[in-house]
Amino acid sequence: MSEALLAPTVIARAHERIAPYINRTPLFHSTLLNHWLGHEFVFKVEGLQKVGAFKVRGALNALLSLQEEGNLPDSVVAFSSGNHAQAVAYAAKQVGVPATILLPADASGVKRQATAGYGAKVIVAESRAEAEARTAELQAEGAYLLHPYDDDRVLAGQGTACYEALNTGLRPDAIFATCGGGGWLSGTYLAAQLLAPRTAVYGAEPAQANDAAQSYRSGDIIRFADSPHTIADGARTLCVSPRTFQYLKRLAGFYEIEEGEIIYWTQWLAHLLKTPVEPTSAVAMAGACAWAKRQSQPRQVLVMLSGGNIAAKTYLTIWAQDLLSVTPDRHVADRAR
Amino acid sequence: MSEALLAPTVIARAHERIAPYINRTPLFHSTLLNHWLGHEFVFKVEGLQKVGAFKVRGALNALLSLQEEGNLPDSVVAFSSGNHAQAVAYAAKQVGVPATILLPADASGVKRQATAGYGAKVIVAESRAEAEARTAELQAEGAYLLHPYDDDRVLAGQGTACYEALNTGLRPDAIFATCGGGGWLSGTYLAAQLLAPRTAVYGAEPAQANDAAQSYRSGDIIRFADSPHTIADGARTLCVSPRTFQYLKRLAGFYEIEEGEIIYWTQWLAHLLKTPVEPTSAVAMAGACAWAKRQSQPRQVLVMLSGGNIAAKTYLTIWAQDLLSVTPDRHVADRAR
Repeated sequence: MSEALLAPTVIARAHERIAPYINRTPLFHSTLLNHWLGHEFVFKVEGLQKVGAFKVRGALNALLSLQEEGNLPDSVVAFSSGNHAQAVAYAAKQVGVPATILLPADASGVKRQATAGYGAKVIVAESRAEAEARTAELQAEGAYLLHPYDDDRVLAGQGTACYEALNTGLRPDAIFATCGGGGWLSGTYLAAQLLAPRTAVYGAEPAQANDAAQSYRSGDIIRFADSPHTIADGARTLCVSPRTFQYLKRLAGFYEIEEGEIIYWTQWLAHLLKTPVEPTSAVAMAGACAWAKRQSQPRQVLVMLSGGNIAAKTYLTIWAQDLLSVTPDRHVADRAR
Repeated sequence: MSEALLAPTVIARAHERIAPYINRTPLFHSTLLNHWLGHEFVFKVEGLQKVGAFKVRGALNALLSLQEEGNLPDSVVAFSSGNHAQAVAYAAKQVGVPATILLPADASGVKRQATAGYGAKVIVAESRAEAEARTAELQAEGAYLLHPYDDDRVLAGQGTACYEALNTGLRPDAIFATCGGGGWLSGTYLAAQLLAPRTAVYGAEPAQANDAAQSYRSGDIIRFADSPHTIADGARTLCVSPRTFQYLKRLAGFYEIEEGEIIYWTQWLAHLLKTPVEPTSAVAMAGACAWAKRQSQPRQVLVMLSGGNIAAKTYLTIWAQDLLSVTPDRHVADRAR
């Protein structure tokens, strides 16, 4: 449970470890988008990762590391309403360990099925208190609790996505990733330290869920009392952890994104990249776009797209208005006025 | 303007011709889907093609063939509300010929922008009559009219998608493609004749736009008076042409798909394959699924997914109900009752 910073080389070792079990996801770009914005945007597409999100990288690195160390637990437990649930189910299956996943009662049926489809036992918890009680019981019986971000092995695994991107030789001026609990950003920061230490790494967060940006400004971890309202469900965490905050403090900055911007870029990235992009991922693009607007010369920016799992009702929110009628060049110009 | 059948080898030559200008699109599959349905479905994903649809193959083959023959026209004209518009704009740019695209007044702003983005001159026609008159004017001035399907070079180009799929060594029991004007299916039929002559090729059509299926049954081309109502906008053509009907007659059969089925598979393919799938493409999957249900042993089927361009308002229709709560195994069982 050390809070010391990890050496950036852990990312390279994590990548070697998990590579046989994951997709080396592609880097996408849109010539049209770059033409409109006057900068070069490169996208790492984790929507095309196993289970449709980067989360599988961290879960696999944690379990494979434990296996290497001879400490593979008899069972694994995780609590998540999001991509971490499927990721742990998938990773546990790869190492042959039974997994129990606690899902909140409002988790979508499709998420429940997918988690069960990877062979995990699914328990629906009526409340957070119930979930915590059940988790404690399972831990008492010897199950290993796989935390979505407050775990060195998990955040090292998350960093392998950025590591892959930079390993192609890409040396962007800036890298943007969305902040939830901070594991994705911490790993991304470490990967950049290893391969592109002169690249600025930025966090992006929904303005309505800006606990990390507030924490960054104040120097102390700010915790929300209740889950914030934002379409970016991967950014609804109440707070970052002391572990991840060590890395977040070292970032070049944070961008806070309005909901309308998140939806605008969710539509446009799906349209231009022809790959599903979660609202959570669009937050990073909106941040990158705000940053690019301030640059006095053309820049290259790597945008980490975290995943592509979108619930049916979220599609309706995303597409309620047709924002494709306003092209990004006009959109940026309109906002500048 | 011959109506003789083309030799299947034209597909190989077309592929060689257009290969430098197109994406070799991937073959996707879903382990989960195959597990649920008890057959192996393989998807050729033309949503990841240039301009987001197979249409660019035919347009490129037509213009590059004319160039080879020393007959490259001074300009090109096309009339389309769909993917053909962007395809012709893109193809014309590759060979350095100016293109004029006539779009109907109700074409989405995003389609207009994309077509213009590829450098084409866009004219919005208030009516079909106006579009035809403007086209005739431009033809009189020497422009070459690039028809979306009634053109040997176009249909040969469309066949290169199936050719790529079969060239990987794939020898499926059946191939399914959606029928609009019939160019995509004709090319697919020729590619199968060349590389997998024992594979059955089937057409699929919305039940509400079943002119080709009716024509197939009756042996004569049936023409709709008005554009049929279906969410599958690529299948709203009024009729096939005598040229494409020559090939359609030789298919193993046609499947007619209800709108609910089209929407069901549009949701599920987007969810499982993590790539945008037009409702028009989901028609082919629904047909393949209906076919597979009748098989007494596990089969392999290639489903040709024509494109991934979805208008904002179409997203709202697609996602109005959450159909992801019913998994394909249950869905198929429910329909069998």
